[in-house]
Amino acid sequence: MKIDPKQPIGVFDSGIGGLTVVRALMERLPFENIVYFGDTARVPYGVKSVETIAHYTTQIAEFLLEKQVKVLIIACNTMAAVAAQVVRDLSPVPVLDVIEAGAIAAVEATRTRQIGVIGTPTTVNSNAYARAIQVMASDARIYSQACPLFVPLVEEGWLDHEVTRLTAQEYLKPVLAEHIDTLVLGCTHYPLLKPLLQNVMGKDVKLVDSAEAMAARTAALLAEQGLTNTDPTLPRYEFYVTDVPVKFQTIGERFLGRSLNHVHVVKW
Amino acid sequence: MKIDPKQPIGVFDSGIGGLTVVRALMERLPFENIVYFGDTARVPYGVKSVETIAHYTTQIAEFLLEKQVKVLIIACNTMAAVAAQVVRDLSPVPVLDVIEAGAIAAVEATRTRQIGVIGTPTTVNSNAYARAIQVMASDARIYSQACPLFVPLVEEGWLDHEVTRLTAQEYLKPVLAEHIDTLVLGCTHYPLLKPLLQNVMGKDVKLVDSAEAMAARTAALLAEQGLTNTDPTLPRYEFYVTDVPVKFQTIGERFLGRSLNHVHVVKW
Repeated sequence: MKIDPKQPIGVFDSGIGGLTVVRALMERLPFENIVYFGDTARVPYGVKSVETIAHYTTQIAEFLLEKQVKVLIIACNTMAAVAAQVVRDLSPVPVLDVIEAGAIAAVEATRTRQIGVIGTPTTVNSNAYARAIQVMASDARIYSQACPLFVPLVEEGWLDHEVTRLTAQEYLKPVLAEHIDTLVLGCTHYPLLKPLLQNVMGKDVKLVDSAEAMAARTAALLAEQGLTNTDPTLPRYEFYVTDVPVKFQTIGERFLGRSLNHVHVVKW
Repeated sequence: MKIDPKQPIGVFDSGIGGLTVVRALMERLPFENIVYFGDTARVPYGVKSVETIAHYTTQIAEFLLEKQVKVLIIACNTMAAVAAQVVRDLSPVPVLDVIEAGAIAAVEATRTRQIGVIGTPTTVNSNAYARAIQVMASDARIYSQACPLFVPLVEEGWLDHEVTRLTAQEYLKPVLAEHIDTLVLGCTHYPLLKPLLQNVMGKDVKLVDSAEAMAARTAALLAEQGLTNTDPTLPRYEFYVTDVPVKFQTIGERFLGRSLNHVHVVKW
């Protein structure tokens, strides 16, 4: 299959959190066309079973492949944790996932090889970050912690709120006790909590933002495979969602860091 | 259509929160057979659009009607708020909903006619409690407040936690300022926060637990229509869910207040 560099990058997520990845891609690769799919009707995935997640993930990947994407980016940590192989098995184009990208960035960042990982319960239970990190650094020790309240706190917009600070202190206490030097933010919602988490963890701990890591990985892959779009015309950004929930626009724009247009609703 | 009192009561919810209604029904009507449906794969509904909620609600009501239920109980406030009429239009058996039940209980409880209502954003935005209350008490003043973090806090099990207390204080501040004498807990998850909410509101405010209100309404309807099951053999309880998520058993049993058996998974 011949791939044209002008074909869009396909990014998908269980909801709108993956817009943090789109934002990082827009900044890192400003000429690329992007098609985003967010399964806003069925979000959150972090509390669903592995079978259900694999089923939904397949459906979304097939939708984006029909849109002629040149690369598929799994922006959702939960999908990456439990269904990345399913996507690789069905896709004729390269597949990148946020866990692999975060793991690479974490191994580059750590000096002590004591790495913390925070995410949803499904991501943490899957142990996918530990596996991805140990493939590259078998001497690394990984300490992970599920933080189920962070997603609703971000969606409530309490990014710098006493309640969020107390919640973070409680969740991160066991991770802090392990004297890690690097903390992977293993959920697309968490980059919005970066200042607060940096404050709770202390300035000596490096935070790995998986959205930025993903954009770096994508840039490297496109360059390697000669797929970088160099056409300087204004890129097209298209957003597909399965529902337009209450406060969608407000929350979406908070994640994307700019206005959110060209939103299409897909009814499944 | 001839209804047999031995036919089960059908209860449905967007997830497992409706088990607080099942618990109240078990205690109030210990001879009744109950079939529960929880849409655990697509929960939460509180942040979805009205069209999507109506579509899912129809699908669930039809499923329970095939199970030969004698009455349909909409245990989910969000579904009751935006799709109760859809269910009444399609059902050949009586339909009760948690908002009507809560409104009746609130009007009975208030003396000052200053009533507070808390719920999910969709429930509050729908204004359904205000309408249901004013049909019965046109002089009542209703003050409502969305509390989106309460559901995840309950599911995290932080029922008596400093974070939950601070969150409640912040959400309830405007409601407290209105000097209400009655507060409707307009979400099936909230009964688990009753002690904490009573503490934040002060002992003079009456809390209306919509699960208990629903059980009282159901008992009254069955008696009125001669549909009460008097067969003293052990009742059957069946639970249908669309997914078995992480911690389903733990959370389910916390809501139900006892062990949760006979769980069947429906794949849609």
